[in-house]
Amino acid sequence: MTKHHSNTALLIIDVQEGLDHPTYWGKRNNPDAEKNMEALLQAWRAAQRPVIHIQHHSTSPKSPLRPGQSGNNIKPALRPLDTEPLYGKTVNSAFIGTTLETDLHEKGITDLVIVGLTTDHCVSTSTRMAGNLGFNVTLVGDATATFDRTAPDGTYISAETMHQINLASLHDEFCTVKNTAEVLERKQ
Amino acid sequence: MTKHHSNTALLIIDVQEGLDHPTYWGKRNNPDAEKNMEALLQAWRAAQRPVIHIQHHSTSPKSPLRPGQSGNNIKPALRPLDTEPLYGKTVNSAFIGTTLETDLHEKGITDLVIVGLTTDHCVSTSTRMAGNLGFNVTLVGDATATFDRTAPDGTYISAETMHQINLASLHDEFCTVKNTAEVLERKQ
Repeated sequence: MTKHHSNTALLIIDVQEGLDHPTYWGKRNNPDAEKNMEALLQAWRAAQRPVIHIQHHSTSPKSPLRPGQSGNNIKPALRPLDTEPLYGKTVNSAFIGTTLETDLHEKGITDLVIVGLTTDHCVSTSTRMAGNLGFNVTLVGDATATFDRTAPDGTYISAETMHQINLASLHDEFCTVKNTAEVLERKQ
Repeated sequence: MTKHHSNTALLIIDVQEGLDHPTYWGKRNNPDAEKNMEALLQAWRAAQRPVIHIQHHSTSPKSPLRPGQSGNNIKPALRPLDTEPLYGKTVNSAFIGTTLETDLHEKGITDLVIVGLTTDHCVSTSTRMAGNLGFNVTLVGDATATFDRTAPDGTYISAETMHQINLASLHDEFCTVKNTAEVLERKQ
């Protein structure tokens, strides 16, 4: 527990029940992502380091993440404690339309360990902005996941390919990508 | 020329000589990107629609894009006219550390057509922020390009794969990806 300090917050993005909708999103990769997020969350809480939660309030009429339905709820195992800040957002970036950047500075938080859903949409966008805003970012690759997508030319791309290629774009430019075991070892 | 209006700006990102450095960046895809950017630039100028240029001023000591060396220069065919605004930036996003967002609002620009380098770093990050900030964004896929990269686990990924997968992440979430011919046809 020597290398992670109170200036390193765990940022958990959009781990909401609606992302388990059986047909709306497509096929997902990395079913272990939530288990890894939970391990990190428990470690952060045990070490009394800051934990910050982000919740997506979709403005899309048909989205399972739209407020007012169960899909908007954060998954039970990842729900915030009363002492942990929760930010609602309506776009991909956790930094747009929120006071997150200002609040992190006020709390002296300089480093972020980012986990959540989905790798290439909200996680990537928030990671990019965090890095560009000057935070030191670790992205935990195996504590994120995404869905299969269709390219502009109609080509099918699997969720695992979307995930891995997007991590490659982020690594060493906006953040350092590590896995859960690497991050937890640093805390022991 | 009926469908693109004066509220649609062409945003040209980081088309700088230093990105042609023979060894610093790796292998690039889409050698036609600049030719496509030029065609769009000529069309925008001919129609007297707004053109906005972005130039990267790297803070990395070894970067060919660092100010004070020729690599920082915008490539001749894509250089701004005196009447076209040029924004310098030091991070990937054209919206961070600049007045771009405010200036676009002041000019009544609601739509952006984005081209430039590189697909998955500065173009993707600027496209994501533009979409999240509420602009209507068209990303011209064949007027962008990127480099091959190494994944966090050491896997080699070709520039063309990086390019195509990143476009798939952006399409229909942050922007609409089109090709140059599609955009130019809309102007005729």
